[in-house]
Amino acid sequence: MQIINTIAGIRALVEEVRREGGIIGFVPTMGYFHEGHLSLMRRAKEECGLVVVSIFVNPLQFGPREDFASYPRDFDRDVAMAEEAGADIIFAPDVAEMYPPHFYTTVNVEKITEPLCGRSRPGHFRGVATVVTKLFNIVRPHRAYFGQKDAQQVLVIKRLAEDLNMDLNIVNAPLVRESDGLAMSSRNVYLSPEDRQAATVLYRSLQEAERAVSEGILEGARLEELVRAIISREPRAAIDYVEVLSLPDLEPCAKISGQALVAVAVRFGNTRLIDNTIVEE
Amino acid sequence: MQIINTIAGIRALVEEVRREGGIIGFVPTMGYFHEGHLSLMRRAKEECGLVVVSIFVNPLQFGPREDFASYPRDFDRDVAMAEEAGADIIFAPDVAEMYPPHFYTTVNVEKITEPLCGRSRPGHFRGVATVVTKLFNIVRPHRAYFGQKDAQQVLVIKRLAEDLNMDLNIVNAPLVRESDGLAMSSRNVYLSPEDRQAATVLYRSLQEAERAVSEGILEGARLEELVRAIISREPRAAIDYVEVLSLPDLEPCAKISGQALVAVAVRFGNTRLIDNTIVEE
Repeated sequence: MQIINTIAGIRALVEEVRREGGIIGFVPTMGYFHEGHLSLMRRAKEECGLVVVSIFVNPLQFGPREDFASYPRDFDRDVAMAEEAGADIIFAPDVAEMYPPHFYTTVNVEKITEPLCGRSRPGHFRGVATVVTKLFNIVRPHRAYFGQKDAQQVLVIKRLAEDLNMDLNIVNAPLVRESDGLAMSSRNVYLSPEDRQAATVLYRSLQEAERAVSEGILEGARLEELVRAIISREPRAAIDYVEVLSLPDLEPCAKISGQALVAVAVRFGNTRLIDNTIVEE
Repeated sequence: MQIINTIAGIRALVEEVRREGGIIGFVPTMGYFHEGHLSLMRRAKEECGLVVVSIFVNPLQFGPREDFASYPRDFDRDVAMAEEAGADIIFAPDVAEMYPPHFYTTVNVEKITEPLCGRSRPGHFRGVATVVTKLFNIVRPHRAYFGQKDAQQVLVIKRLAEDLNMDLNIVNAPLVRESDGLAMSSRNVYLSPEDRQAATVLYRSLQEAERAVSEGILEGARLEELVRAIISREPRAAIDYVEVLSLPDLEPCAKISGQALVAVAVRFGNTRLIDNTIVEE
């Protein structure tokens, strides 16, 4: 496995692979890998000749009061885990390589970035869309892999790739959970033992929503109320949002028809966790 | 010469040329060609194996009270002129092909879009940056050609190509003038004979600025005043802006050091014309 820090370096390498007809799979990450990341790398390895994993904690997608500085980082551990999972190249640029002086361009996806995390984290998706556009142009993958944990992010990236006519496939891989149902996240390490235990309420609340839909409860407001009630019973949980929205346009959903996203964001202490499930009429 | 209307069609074609090692030159236009456009095509033909010319009057870069609907169009004439100038392919998508339903993504270049036409035409450069990003991703050129008539546009496109790590060269070709000095523009056809004659004041005012700089007058405000005074003597001219700004960041220029842009926008009747020159300390 090779570690590359410069844009010129990765570009030369992927260009050669492309010229020779190789298929490039790309897993963009902020590092601090868990099983969710590794499942993306393994899948990329199955489907592509060359697997590029980027590790870049992107300052542009963090708000001024968010956890950019303290976001967990462990490069050596990540390198070992990625190699084990089948990565061929780690692309790990520093901030100055990605955002040199006189950097003035941003990519913005409207409408579907308004609800959910877009409302809670102003500017977050503009930062995501901008860095992903850059990374796609640098790595030029045939296939790029994103986890369903960040459901809104996947929709935003699919939207921008299609709107800007990027010639690649966005692969949306399933959410990976701990054995007790907690969605895997690099931020789970922030949790105290008590909060870690309490956080299992998120998955339980989503399972209840799934069960309700399967029993014919299709009203968005009623499902939101049901999820909200379950989470509220957990005193350590502070709800940021509970929403049921249409797919793929993330519009309010008076009554589910077709697919809908049930998405939650909840704070435990200083740690904000998200989770979601897709339900179907 | 081939005329292609679909994204899938042009993509298949340029992909084949790229696979065979061909060099693709691209001239994005809104049509209604004049010698300025043709000079870009001829230069592309000299430097590239395949010359793609797009004709697309981009609604996204026109304000609600601007001339999108009335912008001059003559496709058959354009096709004949482009073929004569060496174009191999005309890419002429319709609006629905470029902006299908659920199109939500825009590209925005900050800071250097604030002064000049960015101030007079809110949203204009966001429209330009978005369509150019799309066209670059569709045509995947090695070299893209833009005229210096739209000086700020060239700076914006260079900036976005660099910021978003697009792998292509932006070629900035000289402004082309009529024999009496008027900068060529598709909008010149809007001018009444009297306004057409009066509009020659723009180039004369810029020549005066060049002369003043060569004589050691380097204060931005003084140069602006000089240009403004000359244009103001023409009663048919209504100044939108006269500015002297640093390059490439378009900052106010108390005293020129290195290169500076002297840019003007002036209305004659309902027609807004722009012109510029680059001066050097």
